Order: sequence, then structure tokens, then C-alpha cells
Amino acid sequence: MLPVLRWDEPPEGPVLVLLDQTRLPIEEVELVCTDVPALVRAIQTLAVRGAPLLGIAGAYGVALAAVRGYDVEEAVGLLEQARPTAVNLGYGVRQAAAAYRAAAEKGADAEQAGQAALAAARGLHEEDAAASARMAEHGLVLLDELLPGGGHRILTHCNTGALVSGGEGTAFAVSLAAHRAGRLRRLWVDETRPLLQGARLTAYEAARCGMPYTLLTDNAAGSLFAAGEVDAVLIGADRIAADGSVANKVGSYPLAVLAKYHHVPFIVVAPTTTVDLSTPDGASIEVEQRPGQEVTEVTSPQMAAAGGGGSGLPVAPLGTQAYNPAFDVTPPDLVTAIVTEQGALSPVTGGGIADLCVRSRQVTIS
Amino acid sequence: MLPVLRWDEPPEGPVLVLLDQTRLPIEEVELVCTDVPALVRAIQTLAVRGAPLLGIAGAYGVALAAVRGYDVEEAVGLLEQARPTAVNLGYGVRQAAAAYRAAAEKGADAEQAGQAALAAARGLHEEDAAASARMAEHGLVLLDELLPGGGHRILTHCNTGALVSGGEGTAFAVSLAAHRAGRLRRLWVDETRPLLQGARLTAYEAARCGMPYTLLTDNAAGSLFAAGEVDAVLIGADRIAADGSVANKVGSYPLAVLAKYHHVPFIVVAPTTTVDLSTPDGASIEVEQRPGQEVTEVTSPQMAAAGGGGSGLPVAPLGTQAYNPAFDVTPPDLVTAIVTEQGALSPVTGGGIADLCVRSRQVTIS
Repeated sequence: MLPVLRWDEPPEGPVLVLLDQTRLPIEEVELVCTDVPALVRAIQTLAVRGAPLLGIAGAYGVALAAVRGYDVEEAVGLLEQARPTAVNLGYGVRQAAAAYRAAAEKGADAEQAGQAALAAARGLHEEDAAASARMAEHGLVLLDELLPGGGHRILTHCNTGALVSGGEGTAFAVSLAAHRAGRLRRLWVDETRPLLQGARLTAYEAARCGMPYTLLTDNAAGSLFAAGEVDAVLIGADRIAADGSVANKVGSYPLAVLAKYHHVPFIVVAPTTTVDLSTPDGASIEVEQRPGQEVTEVTSPQMAAAGGGGSGLPVAPLGTQAYNPAFDVTPPDLVTAIVTEQGALSPVTGGGIADLCVRSRQVTIS
Repeated sequence: MLPVLRWDEPPEGPVLVLLDQTRLPIEEVELVCTDVPALVRAIQTLAVRGAPLLGIAGAYGVALAAVRGYDVEEAVGLLEQARPTAVNLGYGVRQAAAAYRAAAEKGADAEQAGQAALAAARGLHEEDAAASARMAEHGLVLLDELLPGGGHRILTHCNTGALVSGGEGTAFAVSLAAHRAGRLRRLWVDETRPLLQGARLTAYEAARCGMPYTLLTDNAAGSLFAAGEVDAVLIGADRIAADGSVANKVGSYPLAVLAKYHHVPFIVVAPTTTVDLSTPDGASIEVEQRPGQEVTEVTSPQMAAAGGGGSGLPVAPLGTQAYNPAFDVTPPDLVTAIVTEQGALSPVTGGGIADLCVRSRQVTIS
């Protein structure tokens, strides 16, 4: 497993240890957080990132404050404000804080209440890892059904592995399961412009797991399809609407169109928590526009390490405007299947999505 | 007009002045070549590039040697070897050399024979500019037919303007004609990974011509199609096979598939000299694989200016293999029309391609 995030208890006192993702893939540097302000800095500089992982980090942050005897309510406030738009971060923080308060109300001392917060953080961590494992299992079964010949050549986009998860991730976890089962022939890794998460992070994870992988520009995916070199596309999801429309990293939709044109399965892997039933369809998903600078300048991990904070080298004329949507939306008729921890849904329909959510809630309640 | 390449005759003697394309879009630096070795260096460092432009530069190089009284045959040898795979370079060199030798054989003195070589270079230059102008004209007529509403929003890929041509280029020239006619609403410029010719060169040309343009990552083109923001795709071609298959910069084929899926015209603009009748079909086109370093590292024009020679900053793990085809092949059924200096061909068929070539040869012979 990648040492992405771990709780450690050396003699000097408990700490939260994070892999500094801004330095990847050039260096593996660990950040040791002894207090919440250090963790907040790590969150704000994107040293730790990815929706589920942020939730887990936030929960451990509350536990760290509690166990070390700092002001827990102050820690909760700091962590919740660290990245206000990260929904999972707030969720993780609130889970651990609720466990802490419930223990305190029941008469536990500070030490015991801290242990309750830590248990909540560990629970969240394990839950996420278990969801990853179930997605990987269901995904591999689906792959084997769709591609009975084995020797899967899988194309993926962006970063969906251990670096964003408490476990082994979503789409990446399925590819990794195929690799462990001896059935992955090649993982094709889209570089994923503008931020190059494929080149920087997915290639790093694939290399570390010993998987047979090849990097390509997003432009070159079409040539692979045309040459019959892609057996399936596996991607994650940022949000899934009630009709099964999938919002994911920009560049996913063109892959879905290419996959359809070439009769290649296009598979989305995401936990049921990604489904947002309050968003009725793809058209209702608001797409975040990111700064044009991400397109008009290039940066590298060294530059990030040296200069800090995204100042890059210009590659376009001064004053160039850029269209830079963070993600795109793939309609359900282009999605062969959605794989969740509850199983695979194919074909993708509004009714099927609703059923998945009901099953997921039953599991959570029981 | 961009000062891409010009013959000048200051008091110190004739020179060939080139715009150094490796410094774009950061700086406009002119290179003044007083002899053929200087021009050879400019060709080898890619300060001057682009198939038709290299032919013109080669012809002027022969004229430069002749007019300045250097050894013309030695100059021919040096220029032909400067980039052995550049077909047009050799063609231009041979044209000017033939004019020089013909004049010399007819008893012209060195000065007169030099003027004959210069006239041949100027002829090639003007011919290419005239072909650009005719493609622009035919292309605009076609656009107006296909999109009677006007207010064209055109998506383009790679660099096809004055920087690669003796005139205003191919696909870019059509967009520029639409702009001058007041009918270009927006030029969408794909950045064109891995070498970013769209960001570096097409954005530069569009800015210089005062066109309304917006840069995007190649990944974001799908979002534009889905939003109904693209009225037509205009691209150039590296080679057109006898069946109408089009080899062009990698990333062209995915655009063709997206255009088909969204019922948007996909138009190729190229001179008839791009047709290679000895290549029967798309499958027969051998695709050049470029170094993986272009994908695993990023560079910027400043780095090129400072360090020289493509040493970039790594963005992928050490040892990462990359799949990096230079171009891809679009089958004729995905091409709405091919626009040449002889007119537009639509639908694209082998018979139509053959007719165009016959017409082109008749014009050349007459």
C-alpha cells in the first residue's frame, strides 16, 4: 500500500503522517503533522487532496487535537474552513467531532473522548478502504464478463487510486485488481491536461504497483482506439446525477464518445455517495470554470517545490483567454456501466440509480 | 502579414531574414542569415519550420549562396542534408538550383545565374501565397454554404497559418478570411499537446491578426461540442491518401469523431501537393512515433531560449514509457470536405481526389 496517510504514535506523542502529493512523482516526502494548523497548511497547499481522503484527514485532525489535549472546537473550526468547498472534509470533521462530543457527554474524560474521535476517524478510513475493495471486486467481475478473453488493455483518465482514497481508490482499484489477478495486459494512462494528474499521479501509482503502464497525451487516445488497442475505459466520477449522467474530469466525455464509436465498454467506478439525487440530470450540473492560467502556463513538481503556489512558465501569448472547465458531463447512454460498492449497474437508468441509493442507505442504517 | 521570412538587400549585401519560431510567443526575434551555414542552423534548431515554408527557405538559401558568390553546389548539399525527412525542403532547393544551372548553361554570368535562382525562390514563395489565398477563398465559400447564418465559431488544431507557409496558410487562412469578412465569431484554439503548437503559435497568429480567439486544452473540445459552441472544425493535413484518408497532427481524429457525433462539419484544408497517390489508403500511412520525452517532460519557450535543445522538466516518474504518435489518420467518411487551391471536394471519395490531382497537374503544366 502507498503510505498516503497514517496515524502514528511515536514516544513524543501521536502524529498524522501524510505523503506530500505536491512533490510527486519526483520525490516521496512525508509531512508529519503534530497539530491541526500543520494539517490545515497541508490541506491548503494540496499536499493532501482528493475528496474521500480529505474527509479521512479531517477526521484524524479532530482526533489529533483531542488526543494531544488541544481545544477540539477550535480545531473543528480551523479544519472546516481549510477548504470550504470540499464537502467530504467537513463531513469527516463532523463525524469525529460528534464521536468526541458524544463520549464527553456520557462522562468520558478528555483522553477517552479523544480515543472516541480517533475510533471514528479509523472507522471512516476503514469504511472507505472497504468500499474501494468492493468496487474493485465488482469491477473485475464486470470486466471479466464483458471481456471473456482476459488480457485487458484498460484506458484511464485522471487519478483515481490510493492518492485520493482511504483504500485503493475507484477506477484504479479495478485495474489493480485485474493486475493482481494476472489479467491486466496494459494500463493506458491519459496525461490529463491541464494539471497532468495522469502523468504525475496515476503513472506514479502504476509504477509503484508494478503494473504494465504507458503514458500518452490525451490527444493520442483516439489513435489507440483506432488501432484496436483499448478493451475498456475505466474512469471515476465527481458527481452522478439522478438520471445517471456522470460529471468527471474534463476529457472524460470525449473518451466516452470515442468508446461508443469503437464499441468499447465505458465504465464508471464510484461509491454510491457520489450519486446526488438532488441533481436531476446532466444539464443541471454546474461546471466549475478554473483559472485560464492553468492552460496558458506550464508547471512541474520541481517548480511547485521551489517556487510554491502555481507560478508557471507562459506557453501562450500574454493576455490569451482560456476556456478551462474543470470537468465535463457524460450522458447515461454513453456509459456502459456504473460500478459501486453495492454492485454494477448496467444499463444505466434513473430507476437503477435510485435502487442503488436505496440499497446503500439500507446498508448504512443496518 | 507576419514577418516570417523575407529577402532583404541592405548595403552590406543580400540576406534572408527569418522569424525565430522557437522564441514565440514570448519574443519576436529575427534571425539574419548572411550565408547558408546560418540558414542550416536555423532549420536544424526549428527556428524556421513547416513543410511549405521550409521549401521556400531552401530555395532562398540557394539564391543567397549564388548571389553572394559562394559555392552553389556545396550550398545545395548542405541544405538538402539539413533535415533529410523534410520533403518540401529538398524540392525547394532543387527548384532554385535547377534555375541557377539552366541560366549558367545558357551562358549567364554568376550574378545573372544568381538572379535566376532568386527569381525561382520568389516564384515558389508567390505560388505558395497564391495557393493559400485560393484555399482561403474556396474555404470561406464552403463555410458560408454549410453555415448560412454566419457568425462562425471554428475549432482548429495545431498550427496552420503564416508560420508554416509562404502565404497565410491552410485552415488558419480560411478562419482569417472569415474574420476579415466579419463572419468569424470565435476561433477555438486547441493547445495541441505534446508540443503545444496551438498555444504557442496559433494563439500568437490569432492575437497578431486581431481575431477573437480562445485557447483550450485538447480535453476541453468535447465540452464545447456538447454545449453546441462549435459550428465547424478546420484542420490542415500532413498527407492525404488516394482514398481521401487524412494524416494530420495527433488529436485530429478524436475531433473528427466528436464532430460526426455532434453533426458538425469537419473540414480539411490543404494544397493538392499534400495528396500522395502512391499511398492507397489510411492503413498504408506509416505513423511516425516521436520520443516519449515530449510527453514525460514539459518545456516552455523561455527554457528553449535559455537551455536550448528540448531539455525539459519531468512531470512523470523516471522510466515512464510514453506512446507518442506524431499524427493520426482520419478516414474519408468522417471528413465533410477537403478544400484545396483547386476548390472544395465533398463528399470525399477516391475518384474526387484523383480528379483534383489531374486538375492541379493541368494548371501546373499550362
